[in-house]
Amino acid sequence: MEQVCGPAVPTAESRAVQRPLAIHDVEITGGPFGLRQRVNREASIPLGLEQMERAGSLPNLRLAAGEADGTFRGYRFQDSDLYKQLEAVAWEHARRPAPGYREFIDRAAGVLARAQRPDGYLNSHYQVVKPDRIFAELEYSHEMYCAGHLFQAAVAAARAGAGTDLLAVARRFADHLVAVFLHGGHPGIDGHAEVETALVELYRLTGERSYLELATALVEGRGRGRVRDSGLGVVYSQDHLPVREATTAAGHAVRQLYLESGIVDAYLETGDASLLECSVRRWEDLAATKTHLTGGMGSRHSGEAFGDRYELPPDRAYNESCAAIASVHWNWRLLLATGHGRYADLIERTLHNAFAAATSADGVRFFYVNPLQRRDDHVEGAYAGRRREWFACACCPPNIMRLVSSLGGYLATEAGGGLAVHQYAPGTITSGPVTLEVETGYPWDGRVAFTVRRAPGGRWPLALRVPAWSAATTITVAGESAAAEPDERGYAVLERAWRPGDTVELELDLTPRLVHPHRRADALRGCAAIERGPLVYCFEQADQPAGVDVADLALSPGAELRVLDKDDLDGVGRTVLVETTAYAVRQPAGGLPYTVEPPEALATSARVTATAIPYHQWDNRDGRAMRVWIPLA
Amino acid sequence: MEQVCGPAVPTAESRAVQRPLAIHDVEITGGPFGLRQRVNREASIPLGLEQMERAGSLPNLRLAAGEADGTFRGYRFQDSDLYKQLEAVAWEHARRPAPGYREFIDRAAGVLARAQRPDGYLNSHYQVVKPDRIFAELEYSHEMYCAGHLFQAAVAAARAGAGTDLLAVARRFADHLVAVFLHGGHPGIDGHAEVETALVELYRLTGERSYLELATALVEGRGRGRVRDSGLGVVYSQDHLPVREATTAAGHAVRQLYLESGIVDAYLETGDASLLECSVRRWEDLAATKTHLTGGMGSRHSGEAFGDRYELPPDRAYNESCAAIASVHWNWRLLLATGHGRYADLIERTLHNAFAAATSADGVRFFYVNPLQRRDDHVEGAYAGRRREWFACACCPPNIMRLVSSLGGYLATEAGGGLAVHQYAPGTITSGPVTLEVETGYPWDGRVAFTVRRAPGGRWPLALRVPAWSAATTITVAGESAAAEPDERGYAVLERAWRPGDTVELELDLTPRLVHPHRRADALRGCAAIERGPLVYCFEQADQPAGVDVADLALSPGAELRVLDKDDLDGVGRTVLVETTAYAVRQPAGGLPYTVEPPEALATSARVTATAIPYHQWDNRDGRAMRVWIPLA
Repeated sequence: MEQVCGPAVPTAESRAVQRPLAIHDVEITGGPFGLRQRVNREASIPLGLEQMERAGSLPNLRLAAGEADGTFRGYRFQDSDLYKQLEAVAWEHARRPAPGYREFIDRAAGVLARAQRPDGYLNSHYQVVKPDRIFAELEYSHEMYCAGHLFQAAVAAARAGAGTDLLAVARRFADHLVAVFLHGGHPGIDGHAEVETALVELYRLTGERSYLELATALVEGRGRGRVRDSGLGVVYSQDHLPVREATTAAGHAVRQLYLESGIVDAYLETGDASLLECSVRRWEDLAATKTHLTGGMGSRHSGEAFGDRYELPPDRAYNESCAAIASVHWNWRLLLATGHGRYADLIERTLHNAFAAATSADGVRFFYVNPLQRRDDHVEGAYAGRRREWFACACCPPNIMRLVSSLGGYLATEAGGGLAVHQYAPGTITSGPVTLEVETGYPWDGRVAFTVRRAPGGRWPLALRVPAWSAATTITVAGESAAAEPDERGYAVLERAWRPGDTVELELDLTPRLVHPHRRADALRGCAAIERGPLVYCFEQADQPAGVDVADLALSPGAELRVLDKDDLDGVGRTVLVETTAYAVRQPAGGLPYTVEPPEALATSARVTATAIPYHQWDNRDGRAMRVWIPLA
Repeated sequence: MEQVCGPAVPTAESRAVQRPLAIHDVEITGGPFGLRQRVNREASIPLGLEQMERAGSLPNLRLAAGEADGTFRGYRFQDSDLYKQLEAVAWEHARRPAPGYREFIDRAAGVLARAQRPDGYLNSHYQVVKPDRIFAELEYSHEMYCAGHLFQAAVAAARAGAGTDLLAVARRFADHLVAVFLHGGHPGIDGHAEVETALVELYRLTGERSYLELATALVEGRGRGRVRDSGLGVVYSQDHLPVREATTAAGHAVRQLYLESGIVDAYLETGDASLLECSVRRWEDLAATKTHLTGGMGSRHSGEAFGDRYELPPDRAYNESCAAIASVHWNWRLLLATGHGRYADLIERTLHNAFAAATSADGVRFFYVNPLQRRDDHVEGAYAGRRREWFACACCPPNIMRLVSSLGGYLATEAGGGLAVHQYAPGTITSGPVTLEVETGYPWDGRVAFTVRRAPGGRWPLALRVPAWSAATTITVAGESAAAEPDERGYAVLERAWRPGDTVELELDLTPRLVHPHRRADALRGCAAIERGPLVYCFEQADQPAGVDVADLALSPGAELRVLDKDDLDGVGRTVLVETTAYAVRQPAGGLPYTVEPPEALATSARVTATAIPYHQWDNRDGRAMRVWIPLA
């Protein structure tokens, strides 16, 4: 069972063209990723552990175990919060063990083992509240969804060397699922995909092929009417078409994206290329028509759905934090399967923007929904658009924590006998006999310096991703200019007989840039946004001059974009702002907001200085208006 | 009990400055309103009557009456469908009695009377399914909401001379509500406003002041935490602020709009000017920032809510048909209270667009949701954006029917001792001693000819609304030019000693026009729409040349808008199309839909002829793409 310690570890026999590294072999020492890991460990995870008691997950399991009195609390998928929290703690244990981590895992594994039925079934809601409905309402029960998160937590704990008690529980449940759904003829499929990718991971860890077979059977069974309509339509649960026939991501975004991970995982382990092909086809459509600038996915609050092609409303974008996480999972698997940098590009965009924005600077408040605009007079909706400490449906916070704890696993891979670096952060990367030191102020600074610290003899390739946004990239090796032109997969590949002490410098172009939406993106027409390097910027009210309303701003396409380095902006911390000369445009209101005269003819405008802040740092101040997309003057 | 036969009939002592006319005194003989009434009578109402059995409303009441076996079907507000259907039939009886109408009313009144509890309570869902929860979960029970629709149906039947059996049932229930909520100290308020306006109407009919007192108490009690949170937040049910403090329409649109009718009705009968004032303040905000071009209201699917100011997405506009109806009710009351034409302007916009579009040309299919755009690859959502014959939650179809049946009541009023005409349609209008004949092809044609057929001696004013959209209006009296300049309320007032045979001609400017959105309307930026007279136009795929995709169209601001009269367009019937030279613009797709180059630099464009059809006639053909708002080239 010795395995690379990280999420998504294809077997040696798999079709993976790149191999993940252990998360403890990739140490991140600074930058936003490093900061995020520190805050996650010091603030988010302690909060999460507290919530496992307070919000009911552990008490519910004690009810199921017959160890406590009381009533079930929360949603029917309440167990999954605990599983994701356990996974976060397991990765944290792998990064840097601390006494509480192993103890929490052991304690939870104990409760779970005692709550588990003799036949292996485990779900506190159904055991306590609806024992007669077990596997009878899979369209909304989340029983397999919860099982999937249990499996992922158990795999993480085992790979992290944090004991195998959890794995024993997971295997008993997985064996039960195999008995019921693979051999027992039960036709049901969980309405919420997740168990598919988890079963493949459990197969990878244990070598038990029936887990892979069940995962494949569930992937194959979808879209054939086996997920009953829960009342939200068959598209909601991706049961409208078999996976090879669906050409566009549709329905509940998180469900579709978890399903895609399962599909690519099934490809990786079975070699069925038609599975990869259909997933890539949907990826291309999704990237081109349903992905927000931040990498966020899912445009609709209603049904938590993707929405139609080019339906990209900045204000009403749902962009669930869990969808950003699921997108990273999927893109990572596509990267392992194909080695194509476009997936790493999207992971970068997602990690630095949609995903990073979901957590407050202090790590104790979270967004469930991540729009690209908030109006000042926001009155509708449950939360008035601010982050919250926790949620009744708390799927996002522990999901965020598990990804932050395992971030090291997503930075680099072993590829072609060498090393490929996909995401840039300061620290060290070890892959077998290679150790690479990375020094950089990225993404605040575009210079990334690599020093080879250990190397095997002989030539091996060092592949550095050249992000598609970098308009002018240079590379020097030992101070000498080298070809920075990326290959067809988006990587500059430097093949040398590297020796300890060798240095490489990558210089990415961080000139701030205006970006424009595709003309079919109706909700963004006539607007532009600012990006710098991998960071999407936004205009928050807090940074604008007195009397200048964010809603009145108009950008001047030719205006200079000036960079302002800030060591410690109040409430935000280290940042780089972008300042530009813009206009404040006011149009009178009254009567209907429709006129025969064009708005330009009715408005007055004044030149002002407007200031943008990285999107991931928004909502750390006064909670007023924010816009990513600004009209062009 | 002799009263004007129509909806919303203020007492003689009320503050109304205009007086409604009986719906049978306003005969509509043609045009879209006349066509709508014919189709309503011949197709929609028969379908509705059938659905009263099929969808469960009447069977549920038979269960409550102990006259049948079976189980309750549908929603807890299922009774309200029957009440709205009864109201439609009552108005239809008033317009032109037919044997089935009275019989249906009597039969339904019988079942209701037998289902009604001795104490007056009546609600089939709570009596059959949840007898122990009566008035215990008003935040979502809809018990008073259903009562309100019963009262309105009973008032309609009584005013229409269709018997008083229904009124007896209604009064027993109203007396019970008075006993429980006015005198009994029950603090609850229904989460869905509606009973307030209905109780005022019941007071107007019966003179029973406790009904008015209860209505006022419910209006006053809202926004004070007496509507418990049903889980969708206190804004959803307008319980976040007392009515005088709320400055913007918020939450569930239909609830807010019905509440506003109750508020203005309470003002009309109590004279409390602060009620009118707060409602007018919200109207001004709503008109300026939350009203779609069609008059539709409610921008969000989620919570069926208004959304923020200037949140006006054409694709995701919810614009529930019931909200358009509720808006007409409210605006009509504001018109009676103030005599201001801006309310009649909005009624016209709503009736000809948002409301008219809700029903198919053949009268047997309905929209619940009325967006201003449908994409071709529409896969999300329950109904793929097509009209349907009926709905599980069927609030809209019978609501549409009752408004169509009572349309005559919304065309003209007695005002200042004379007659005010608010909406133009061919037919005759009788107000006491005055009869006016109206000849017009409106809104296809801008000429409206009036002939006085009966008139009392002496001078009296004939007030003709001059719509705000008419850029050049002329009036002739007996062939002589008269002042067409509207007064401060938007009416050209012609005061004469009118004699039978006198003629007036009003000529409104139907030149098609481009209209532009306010710059804060983010979702509409860079687009324009076409209007002609009161009609909003849209571009449906069916009318475009082969190979020209509606999504590619771009309008040329200077291009001529040519009018094409069509006697009978396939599937649509009589219409006037508007044709213009436009562009088909194509931008390549692939990768993310965001580029450093502006879309203009990447797109190719070709000149094409684009054709628009009145919005209310859309979706009567092949169900492909539609857009009201088109980008400007």
